Amino acid sequence: MSSPKKYHIKFLPSGKQIEVPKNHNLRQAILDCGLEIESSCGGVGTCGRCVVQVKKGKVDAKETRFLSPKEFSKGFVLSCLARVIEDIEVTIPEQKKVKAIIEKGKLVEGSHVYAGISKQEFEHESIEPWIKKFDVEVEQPSLSYGTSDLFRFKKAVKDKLQLQDVTVPIEVIKKLPTELRQHHWKLTVTIETEKNVIIDICDQARPNDLYGLALDIGTTTLVMYLVDLDTGNILGSESEYNPQIRFGEDIINRIVYANSQAGLKKLKEVVTDSVNNLIWRLILATQVEPEDIVALMVSGNSTMMHLFYEVCPKYIREEPYVTVANRFSDCRATDIGIKHIKNAYTYSTQGVASYLGGDITSGILATGMNQQEELALFIDLGTNGELVVGNCEWMMGCSCSAGPAFEGGGVKCGIRAVDGAIEKTYIDQETYQCQAGTIGGAKPRGLCGSGLIDIIGEMYLKGIIDRKGKFHKDIGNKYLHKEDGDYRYTIIGAEHSATGKEIYISEVDIDNLMRAKAAVYAGIKTLLEEVDLSVYDLEKVYIAGGLGKNVNIGNAVVIGMLPDININRYYFMGNTSITGAYINLLSASKYAQSVAAADAVTYIELSVNMKFMDRYVAGLFLPYTDLKDFPTVEELLLSINDKKQT
Amino acid sequence: MSSPKKYHIKFLPSGKQIEVPKNHNLRQAILDCGLEIESSCGGVGTCGRCVVQVKKGKVDAKETRFLSPKEFSKGFVLSCLARVIEDIEVTIPEQKKVKAIIEKGKLVEGSHVYAGISKQEFEHESIEPWIKKFDVEVEQPSLSYGTSDLFRFKKAVKDKLQLQDVTVPIEVIKKLPTELRQHHWKLTVTIETEKNVIIDICDQARPNDLYGLALDIGTTTLVMYLVDLDTGNILGSESEYNPQIRFGEDIINRIVYANSQAGLKKLKEVVTDSVNNLIWRLILATQVEPEDIVALMVSGNSTMMHLFYEVCPKYIREEPYVTVANRFSDCRATDIGIKHIKNAYTYSTQGVASYLGGDITSGILATGMNQQEELALFIDLGTNGELVVGNCEWMMGCSCSAGPAFEGGGVKCGIRAVDGAIEKTYIDQETYQCQAGTIGGAKPRGLCGSGLIDIIGEMYLKGIIDRKGKFHKDIGNKYLHKEDGDYRYTIIGAEHSATGKEIYISEVDIDNLMRAKAAVYAGIKTLLEEVDLSVYDLEKVYIAGGLGKNVNIGNAVVIGMLPDININRYYFMGNTSITGAYINLLSASKYAQSVAAADAVTYIELSVNMKFMDRYVAGLFLPYTDLKDFPTVEELLLSINDKKQT
Repeated sequence: MSSPKKYHIKFLPSGKQIEVPKNHNLRQAILDCGLEIESSCGGVGTCGRCVVQVKKGKVDAKETRFLSPKEFSKGFVLSCLARVIEDIEVTIPEQKKVKAIIEKGKLVEGSHVYAGISKQEFEHESIEPWIKKFDVEVEQPSLSYGTSDLFRFKKAVKDKLQLQDVTVPIEVIKKLPTELRQHHWKLTVTIETEKNVIIDICDQARPNDLYGLALDIGTTTLVMYLVDLDTGNILGSESEYNPQIRFGEDIINRIVYANSQAGLKKLKEVVTDSVNNLIWRLILATQVEPEDIVALMVSGNSTMMHLFYEVCPKYIREEPYVTVANRFSDCRATDIGIKHIKNAYTYSTQGVASYLGGDITSGILATGMNQQEELALFIDLGTNGELVVGNCEWMMGCSCSAGPAFEGGGVKCGIRAVDGAIEKTYIDQETYQCQAGTIGGAKPRGLCGSGLIDIIGEMYLKGIIDRKGKFHKDIGNKYLHKEDGDYRYTIIGAEHSATGKEIYISEVDIDNLMRAKAAVYAGIKTLLEEVDLSVYDLEKVYIAGGLGKNVNIGNAVVIGMLPDININRYYFMGNTSITGAYINLLSASKYAQSVAAADAVTYIELSVNMKFMDRYVAGLFLPYTDLKDFPTVEELLLSINDKKQT
Repeated sequence: MSSPKKYHIKFLPSGKQIEVPKNHNLRQAILDCGLEIESSCGGVGTCGRCVVQVKKGKVDAKETRFLSPKEFSKGFVLSCLARVIEDIEVTIPEQKKVKAIIEKGKLVEGSHVYAGISKQEFEHESIEPWIKKFDVEVEQPSLSYGTSDLFRFKKAVKDKLQLQDVTVPIEVIKKLPTELRQHHWKLTVTIETEKNVIIDICDQARPNDLYGLALDIGTTTLVMYLVDLDTGNILGSESEYNPQIRFGEDIINRIVYANSQAGLKKLKEVVTDSVNNLIWRLILATQVEPEDIVALMVSGNSTMMHLFYEVCPKYIREEPYVTVANRFSDCRATDIGIKHIKNAYTYSTQGVASYLGGDITSGILATGMNQQEELALFIDLGTNGELVVGNCEWMMGCSCSAGPAFEGGGVKCGIRAVDGAIEKTYIDQETYQCQAGTIGGAKPRGLCGSGLIDIIGEMYLKGIIDRKGKFHKDIGNKYLHKEDGDYRYTIIGAEHSATGKEIYISEVDIDNLMRAKAAVYAGIKTLLEEVDLSVYDLEKVYIAGGLGKNVNIGNAVVIGMLPDININRYYFMGNTSITGAYINLLSASKYAQSVAAADAVTYIELSVNMKFMDRYVAGLFLPYTDLKDFPTVEELLLSINDKKQT
């Protein structure tokens, strides 16, 4: 086999260079090169942030709504949707850091952006997948050595891998006689080394490719990576909305639906269909041989995992809130309705509890906090805020039901983080007029969770609302008016919105978000105080999850959702559920580590914790009842007031 | 649970008594009592030999072709088809021993009859099935002990059985939450203890029944037992012809058909259908709960096993004659098309080689020769004669292709061992007229294998044929005539046969049988001489298999098929393939022993063995070229000649 042709890429302005095989993903190449590239969706083409410009040569790229035809013609592409087909030179625009953040009373740039995982990052962990291909030569039978094909085959495998025994399923036995003789007793064998099961056999002339699928089943979104198990390269990624949404937007509604007649079956069916679609799209896009895909690693919250395996989730929401299983037994993918990948086994990440699932264990693995001595806090922000605090010696976790506000629910103009959702705002101190930035740059349609946090922070800083989240009615704010008995602040006038309707925020909306942010901060405080620590002991804070990828940390601190600590301690992790699944796929020891990590987490049930309730109530102020918890916010407010008065 | 009612049986004339549960099989009760009952079919209602008379009380019995309505009305029943439903008194007729046998020049009664296995026989082996039911109480979850149902369930199981880990398949996980709560955290668990896989969970109030199926897939017949895994009781047995027969009567023809397009699939399909039928009939007859049937143990020759698992058998008949596998991996029964028993796993007996399959290993296990110090010979007589010689220290086996004569093939008036097949003959020394006994007592239809052996022995003893198997034309035998250029001896005239045609034997027929018997004896000699032993060293000779169950050992010695040794060393074993499967089902250590036994057998390939060829040629005489090998036959011939001359 001649080695496949490599293409050369030069990145500007850094001048860094790399060689990659044909069809290599361009964003992956950037990460492989150790360069930074913004991407909040994890590289699935939905956030539009990883734009680069191809200056010399061409790439195979999809058109996207994030780029105008003119931009596209000038070589601008989303790097995550581009594949390398010849030598190229690529300019990476200066990467915008996470928006304004507060330090010492000033808005400053700061924090770190992680999005996906770079090959380089992973390489020093050493890739050691537990599914392997290797060549064997099987002794030929003769009249004097007339044992069965199976015996001689097993002997060859056992000798080669120094194993006591291997299991050869009937399906492989069926192929054995023909494959052995057609290929002159020389075969390539695929083995799952955890239980020493032979997965497949084939001609040695076939490329030794071996692939796995990492799958994150989010309540809202499914994301799947197709991974080369030898190199760790992500050859493709696809995502789509979780089709279960039409049976209930959040976990609780899904559980309720699952209890209706045939509800569980239906929920299982639709998610399986979607997963099968994702697999098929990845196979089409990458042209890998389906039989070379040998593993499907599934990560998700406990409810999503129950539904995926068609296991009744009822008891997750009934006291004492237990799962049926925190990890589901390995099985053949075909046994649970997965199509296209008949050689694959399905594995699941290990969860901790009903509201601290395998997605959070994946997060722990992705941050590496379970291996480090420094004290870290992991926050996964979606419908639920899930928290883990600890280090390599201990971990403690909880889930604080933040309510639907972060996902745009319970808020009149709230929408999910889709195109046109407002995620960034700026309010003029003098006129109180608001300017808004939307996802994808489209005309504004509504407020998503990160926009909600941002606008409330802005309103508080600019004096539009008071510490209780009520509007100051006496400041001459002409964007404030009363309708249906409730005051509302106009963010975008009807004439500028995509819907032709005003986009506003009311006191009821603010109340909803106050409860959500209070729950998160109360969770953090409760966890830390359980072990006699304070937020100042935190050396790293990892932010992950659906909301976490866009949130303005500065304003999240201003409203008292995140602790008021040195901004450099915050790390954006993106979708750590898929990252954890990806790491698990590539490394047996990491997979074992994640299982151990889940076991190591002490779960605190907050719904019955009185201290949590106290802190939650204290959190229903901006930023908090006791301002001493938020000294830089206090300082910032003072400096703003100083400016105003001068 | 109150213990179920028992019924009392008194056997006459022995006076032995036993108590059995309702619906207990009557033949089994006889065996359990340590009494002898003839039965060559293994208790499946096809040989008609286990007739008893119910003197007091009634049994639930099927009518059968073996008994006239008058006999049936007088209480005569086939004990294997009768079930105990009240207290009874039963007369067991004097058991006919195997027919005339030669010792010291006289025809005498002799030899031992084994048919099936008695519970008593098995009990001292101690039943230790590797699938078990046991009760656990699972700790309830609480807010302070909020682990998953699966974790607490596994903990309860592991604590109870002192295990490191157990595997709980998805299907069981799905049932877990409901079963746990419905039954107040107390469950009965079914576990497969070889790999510690949980098979099922249920209410503790359900009876702790656990059943297995033993299956013998013969080339001609399928036999299945339904076995209580706790007691070893055989609750039911069913059999039917192997439906593959229509695609080829013998192994070679099946292999040829399997190589035709879709042939393998078809052969697999029809045998699976039959197995499913047998299972369903047993479930109906015994009324056991299908989900309590947890194991299917399959025994059969290598070709039958390949076809059952849909594995290409092609290389069995191509030099160097190897199997794909001598034992097939354990799998769920449903995975290979088995219906009705969704909780069952399928296990297979371990074979030795292409022509020494799991059926022979079953035979070794059934005889126990692998555990005894005395030198034994095991002979399974069907289409192939399979031989194993040895003891607890060594074993050596071979297969001598006996040709189709034993199954009635290659013989003009040959038929299979069905109703009306002649199996016993007696020739008048003066008139040369033949009298014939048939299977089932029906009008004669043809000669089966055992009849063929018998008639040739008779003809030789009575001087109708010479040592080369040619007719003496000069003795005034009026039943001898020439037709179509070949001499033939009339066994049954057209007027007395069921077909209206003469039943005869020709020199060509005799030739065919001579080759078959020569192959068997040459195999025995070759095996023994490989280890410098002679037939006189044999302490036991076990006869099993389709032919073996009816054969007249005396005449088998006369024609030189079986060694001329003390008749008391011969033991009839019946169908040892099903017996071995039955033993395997009941005992993990016996199953392991059978696998070890298969490994311990050195296989000798006779088709390329020159010594075998020499002895085969020497065997084309009656009884053998060198009469010194058959001293009692020589003596007998002399005594007969003496009588004639006086």
